[in-house]
Amino acid sequence: MSNTNESDFRDILEVFENPAPHRDFTIEHNCPEFTSVCPKTGQPDYGTIVFTYVPDEVCVELKSLKMYLQRFRNEGIFYEAITNRILDDFVAVVKPRKLRVESRWTPRGGLNSNITIEYP
Amino acid sequence: MSNTNESDFRDILEVFENPAPHRDFTIEHNCPEFTSVCPKTGQPDYGTIVFTYVPDEVCVELKSLKMYLQRFRNEGIFYEAITNRILDDFVAVVKPRKLRVESRWTPRGGLNSNITIEYP
Amino acid sequence: MSNTNESDFRDILEVFENPAPHRDFTIEHNCPEFTSVCPKTGQPDYGTIVFTYVPDEVCVELKSLKMYLQRFRNEGIFYEAITNRILDDFVAVVKPRKLRVESRWTPRGGLNSNITIEYP
Amino acid sequence: MSNTNESDFRDILEVFENPAPHRDFTIEHNCPEFTSVCPKTGQPDYGTIVFTYVPDEVCVELKSLKMYLQRFRNEGIFYEAITNRILDDFVAVVKPRKLRVESRWTPRGGLNSNITIEYP
Amino acid sequence: MSNTNESDFRDILEVFENPAPHRDFTIEHNCPEFTSVCPKTGQPDYGTIVFTYVPDEVCVELKSLKMYLQRFRNEGIFYEAITNRILDDFVAVVKPRKLRVESRWTPRGGLNSNITIEYP
Amino acid sequence: MSNTNESDFRDILEVFENPAPHRDFTIEHNCPEFTSVCPKTGQPDYGTIVFTYVPDEVCVELKSLKMYLQRFRNEGIFYEAITNRILDDFVAVVKPRKLRVESRWTPRGGLNSNITIEYP
Amino acid sequence: MSNTNESDFRDILEVFENPAPHRDFTIEHNCPEFTSVCPKTGQPDYGTIVFTYVPDEVCVELKSLKMYLQRFRNEGIFYEAITNRILDDFVAVVKPRKLRVESRWTPRGGLNSNITIEYP
Amino acid sequence: MSNTNESDFRDILEVFENPAPHRDFTIEHNCPEFTSVCPKTGQPDYGTIVFTYVPDEVCVELKSLKMYLQRFRNEGIFYEAITNRILDDFVAVVKPRKLRVESRWTPRGGLNSNITIEYP
Amino acid sequence: MSNTNESDFRDILEVFENPAPHRDFTIEHNCPEFTSVCPKTGQPDYGTIVFTYVPDEVCVELKSLKMYLQRFRNEGIFYEAITNRILDDFVAVVKPRKLRVESRWTPRGGLNSNITIEYP
Amino acid sequence: MSNTNESDFRDILEVFENPAPHRDFTIEHNCPEFTSVCPKTGQPDYGTIVFTYVPDEVCVELKSLKMYLQRFRNEGIFYEAITNRILDDFVAVVKPRKLRVESRWTPRGGLNSNITIEYP
Repeated sequence: MSNTNESDFRDILEVFENPAPHRDFTIEHNCPEFTSVCPKTGQPDYGTIVFTYVPDEVCVELKSLKMYLQRFRNEGIFYEAITNRILDDFVAVVKPRKLRVESRWTPRGGLNSNITIEYP
Repeated sequence: MSNTNESDFRDILEVFENPAPHRDFTIEHNCPEFTSVCPKTGQPDYGTIVFTYVPDEVCVELKSLKMYLQRFRNEGIFYEAITNRILDDFVAVVKPRKLRVESRWTPRGGLNSNITIEYP
Repeated sequence: MSNTNESDFRDILEVFENPAPHRDFTIEHNCPEFTSVCPKTGQPDYGTIVFTYVPDEVCVELKSLKMYLQRFRNEGIFYEAITNRILDDFVAVVKPRKLRVESRWTPRGGLNSNITIEYP
Repeated sequence: MSNTNESDFRDILEVFENPAPHRDFTIEHNCPEFTSVCPKTGQPDYGTIVFTYVPDEVCVELKSLKMYLQRFRNEGIFYEAITNRILDDFVAVVKPRKLRVESRWTPRGGLNSNITIEYP
Repeated sequence: MSNTNESDFRDILEVFENPAPHRDFTIEHNCPEFTSVCPKTGQPDYGTIVFTYVPDEVCVELKSLKMYLQRFRNEGIFYEAITNRILDDFVAVVKPRKLRVESRWTPRGGLNSNITIEYP
Repeated sequence: MSNTNESDFRDILEVFENPAPHRDFTIEHNCPEFTSVCPKTGQPDYGTIVFTYVPDEVCVELKSLKMYLQRFRNEGIFYEAITNRILDDFVAVVKPRKLRVESRWTPRGGLNSNITIEYP
Repeated sequence: MSNTNESDFRDILEVFENPAPHRDFTIEHNCPEFTSVCPKTGQPDYGTIVFTYVPDEVCVELKSLKMYLQRFRNEGIFYEAITNRILDDFVAVVKPRKLRVESRWTPRGGLNSNITIEYP
Repeated sequence: MSNTNESDFRDILEVFENPAPHRDFTIEHNCPEFTSVCPKTGQPDYGTIVFTYVPDEVCVELKSLKMYLQRFRNEGIFYEAITNRILDDFVAVVKPRKLRVESRWTPRGGLNSNITIEYP
Repeated sequence: MSNTNESDFRDILEVFENPAPHRDFTIEHNCPEFTSVCPKTGQPDYGTIVFTYVPDEVCVELKSLKMYLQRFRNEGIFYEAITNRILDDFVAVVKPRKLRVESRWTPRGGLNSNITIEYP
Repeated sequence: MSNTNESDFRDILEVFENPAPHRDFTIEHNCPEFTSVCPKTGQPDYGTIVFTYVPDEVCVELKSLKMYLQRFRNEGIFYEAITNRILDDFVAVVKPRKLRVESRWTPRGGLNSNITIEYP
C-alpha cells in the first residue's frame, strides 16, 4: 500500500478541446476494471467507476482517464473517500458543466455497495 | 425464537466520520443474505435489505451493519414490523440526511412481498 | 363456473394492525398464481396480480389475501371487470391511503394484456 | 398487395361497455404477431403493436382487435403511416380518454425502428 | 483513412413526406452496425447509433440513413466529434421538431463510452 | 376436489394421422398453464408440463391435449403421481415410439420440484 | 388460403457451389420471421425455422431461402406437415450430407410447440 | 453453534410410497434457502441444495425435507462436509436407485463454491 | 472492395512459443468486431469470429490476430468462403493440434447465419 | 512488475483433510476477481479463474486459495503461461484426482480469451 499526493494523480488526467462547446451534451465513460486496496484489511477491492458529464471547454482524454484510475491499484482507501476524491480530481482538471460519479463494488461479507455523487 | 430489546441491536451499529460532509451524496448497501423467523409459523423467512442514504456527519461501518442484520437470524418478527424497526435503528445511530430502506422477501405460499420506507 | 356475491369474497380478507401508522410506507404483494375463467369461452385465464399500497390503520394479512384470490379460481369474469373488483374489495376491507392493482395476463390468441388501476 | 378502404378496417373493431367508467384506469394490449408488406420492396415486415389506453365508455374487444390487426397482413404500407392509421382507427371506434400506440419492427438492413404516438 | 467534406455526406440522406404532420409523434431508428476509425491509433471503432426524433414536414428514408452511416466506415474521427456531426447533418436535412442522437461504443482499453446529444 | 376415473380423461385426447411415419422426428409441446390441487393441503399447485415425443402412426391433436390437461384443474393428486399418470395416458392413446414427460412446479415452502419420466 | 404444388416451391430455392467440398462443415440459417395459416381455424401461425446442414456440392443461396419461406405466408398447413415438407424440399434441391430442420411456434391456447427433424 | 448427532437429523426425513416403482424416473428438489454457520469464523453461510434422484420403493416427503434442511440453520460445518453428510442422510433414509446432491454457495471473500456428489 | 492474395494475409499472423507443449489445453479467442463486404450487394457484413484451438508448438499472438481480421474490412467475400479461408490461414501459420472456427453473422433480410468448421 | 519464484507462491496454498476420501466428488471454486499485469504492455489484465477438481486426500483451504491468487496482482505474465502455472501449483500442493482450470479474460483490443486445461 503506497501513499501518493493529490497532484501526482491529477497530473495524469489529460484533456482535449470540446468539439461542440456551444451546446450541452452528455458523455458517459464506464470503467469496469477498477481496483484499490481496503485500508482496514489490506485486501483488494474491485469495482466499476462510471463518469457521466457535460463538458465545458474540454473533454477528458480516454487513455489518460484509464491511466489515472490505474494509479489507485495499490492505494489503501475506503469506498466513500475514493469516490469523493475521484470526483474532486475530475472537477479540478476537466471543469465540466455537470458531473456524476458512481462507484459500484463487488460483494464483501455478503454485502455490496454503490456510491453516487453529483456535481455541482 | 428469542426476544432482544432495542438497545442490544443498536449498540452493534458502528459509524465513521463522513469524508465529505460538505456535499450531499448517496450510499447504497445491498444485503441479500437476510433471514429472520415468521412469528406465526416459526418458519424462517429470507430476504434482501437495501439501504440507500445520504450521510450527514457519519457513515455506517459496513461490517457492523452486517453484524447488526445477523442479530435478526433467530428473531420472530413480521415483514412490516422488521422493516420499520431497521429504519428506526439506522436513523437513531447514523442520523442520515435522507434514508430509504427496502426489504424484498422470497415467496411464501406462492406470493412474494416487498416493503419500502423513506425517511424523513 | 359459479357465481358468488361480493360479501362472500370480502369476508375472506383479514387485516392486522399497521405497526407504523405514523408514517407513509409502501407494501407490494406480487401474486403470480392467479387463475379465473373466461366467461365467453369457458377456458381458464392465468395471470399475476400485484398490489402496491400505503397502509392506513391496518395491513392485509398475507395468507387471507392468497385465500381471497383463490376464490376466483372457478369464477367467470373478464380481465377489466376482475381487476376493478379486486381493487374495490381491497379498498373496502383494508382502507389504504393509496393503492395500485395491476393484473398481467398470459397470451391469448397471440396477444397479452395488462390492466392497471390506481386509488384514489 | 391489396388496398382496403378505411371503413372496411374499422368495422372489424368491436367494443364492450367499460365496467368502471367512473374511474380512470389503464389497459395495455401487447400484440407481437403483426405483419404487413413494405410498399417499396414488396417484402413482408414484422412487428409488435402495443396499445395502452384509458377507456371512456367502452373497451375494445380483444378478439376483434386481433382480427383487425390481421387485416394488414397483405397491405402495402410504411411504418410511419401504419402506426398513425392504427391510432386513428382505434380513436374513431373506441373513443378512449387517452391512448398510446407503439410499433416496434424487426431489423431491416441492420437497422430496427420503433414508432410511438400519443393521443390526445 | 479518407476525408470527405460535409455536403458529400448530407447529400446521401433522403426524406419523404411526414404522413401525419398535424401531430407530434416519435420515431426511433436503432443502428447497431456503425464503424469508423480512431484518428489517433488508426484502429477501427464499433458502435451503435440511435436516432429518436419528432418529424416536422419530412421523415428520413431508412435506406438512405443506412447509406449515410456507412460513409463513416473509413473516416478517422473521435467519438465526441462524430456524434455531434451526425446530429448536425440530420438536423440540416430532416429539420425535425426534436431530436436525440446517442452513440454507444464497444470497449477500448477496458472502458466503454456513450455520448448523448439533444436538439434543440 | 373431484375424482374422475382414467377413461374419462383418456377419452379427451384426440389424435391425427402422422404426416411422415416413415421417419423418426420429434415433437415438443410446452404447456405452462397447468394447475391441480394438493391432496394434503387442498391448496392449488401450478406447473408446466412438457411433452417430447417421436410419433408412430398418430400425433396428438393440440387442442385436445389442452382440454385433457384442464381436467386436472380440480383434481387432488401429488406431483409424482400426476406425472406418471399423464405419461400413462399419453402412451395409451398416442402410442409414441418415444416419449418424455417433464413437470416443473412453482415453489412451495421455499422449495421447487421437477419430475422427468422417459418411455420406454 | 391458397394451394401451391411442390415444384412451385422448390423452384424458388437456388444454390451456389460449395467453396470447400473437401471437408465437412456446418451452416446454420436461423429464420425467425416465418408465418403460415392454420388450416383448421384459418388463423395465422408464427414461428422460427432453423436449418442446420453440412453442404455437399452446393450451398443454399440465402435470399432464395427467404423467398422460399415467404411462399408459405398464405398456405394452410399444420406444424408437423410443414416441417416435414420444408425438410423434403431442402433435401431435394440442396442434397446436403446432413440436415436438421427445427420449427418453433409462438403460443396458441397457452401451449407452444417445437418440431425437430434430422436427415438422413 | 450447536452439535446434533446423526440420528436426530435423519429422524426428521419422512418418505411415502413410490407411485411408480416399476419404472425409473427422476425427481429434482431445488432448495434455495439453505443456511448454516462457518465453523471457522462463526459467520452464517448461505446456499442452494439441489437433490436429483431416482426413487426406489419410497419418495422423500417434501415438507420433511424442508424441516431436515432447517436443522442445519445453527450448525457449524464446512461446505465439503455438509454436502457429504446430506447425501449420506438422504441415502440412509430414502434408499434411492441414484442420487446427486449439489450445493451452491454465495460468495465469500470474492470467491463462490459449488460441491457435487453422485451416488452410487 | 479490394482483392488481396493469401500470403498478404497470412504474413500478418504472428506466433509465440507454447509455454506448455507437453500437454493438450484449449485456447478460445472471441472476436466480436469482424466486418467484411458482401460481394453481391457491396454492403458491409458484421459478425463474430470464434477460434477454439489446442496449440502445438506455438500459440497465436493476440494483437496480430486482431490485425489479421481487420484486413477483411474491405474485402468482398461470402460467409461460407470467408470462414473456410480463415481456418486455412490459421492452420497454415499456427499448425494447431485441433481447431474450430465459428462465424456468427448479424441478420440480413430477417435471417441470420452461423458457420462452424472443425480441423482436422 | 515483480518476479517471484515458484515456491513462494505454492507455500501460500493450504489444505485440509478431505472429509469423504472414500468417494469421488467434485468441488468448484469460482474466482472472479483475478488480476495480473501484461508483460508486453505493462497494463493490468482482469479475469476469472475457475477450479473444478475431485479431491484425493486433501481439499484446498478457501482463504489460502484467495491469498495465492492475489500474489499475481503485480506479476507480469501471459494468459497462456499463467493458466498453466496455476494448474501446476494446484497439482503440486493439493494432488487432486482430477482438475480443470479455466481462465476467462476481459476484452483487450476488442477480443476476449478463455484458456482451459484439464489434469491429468
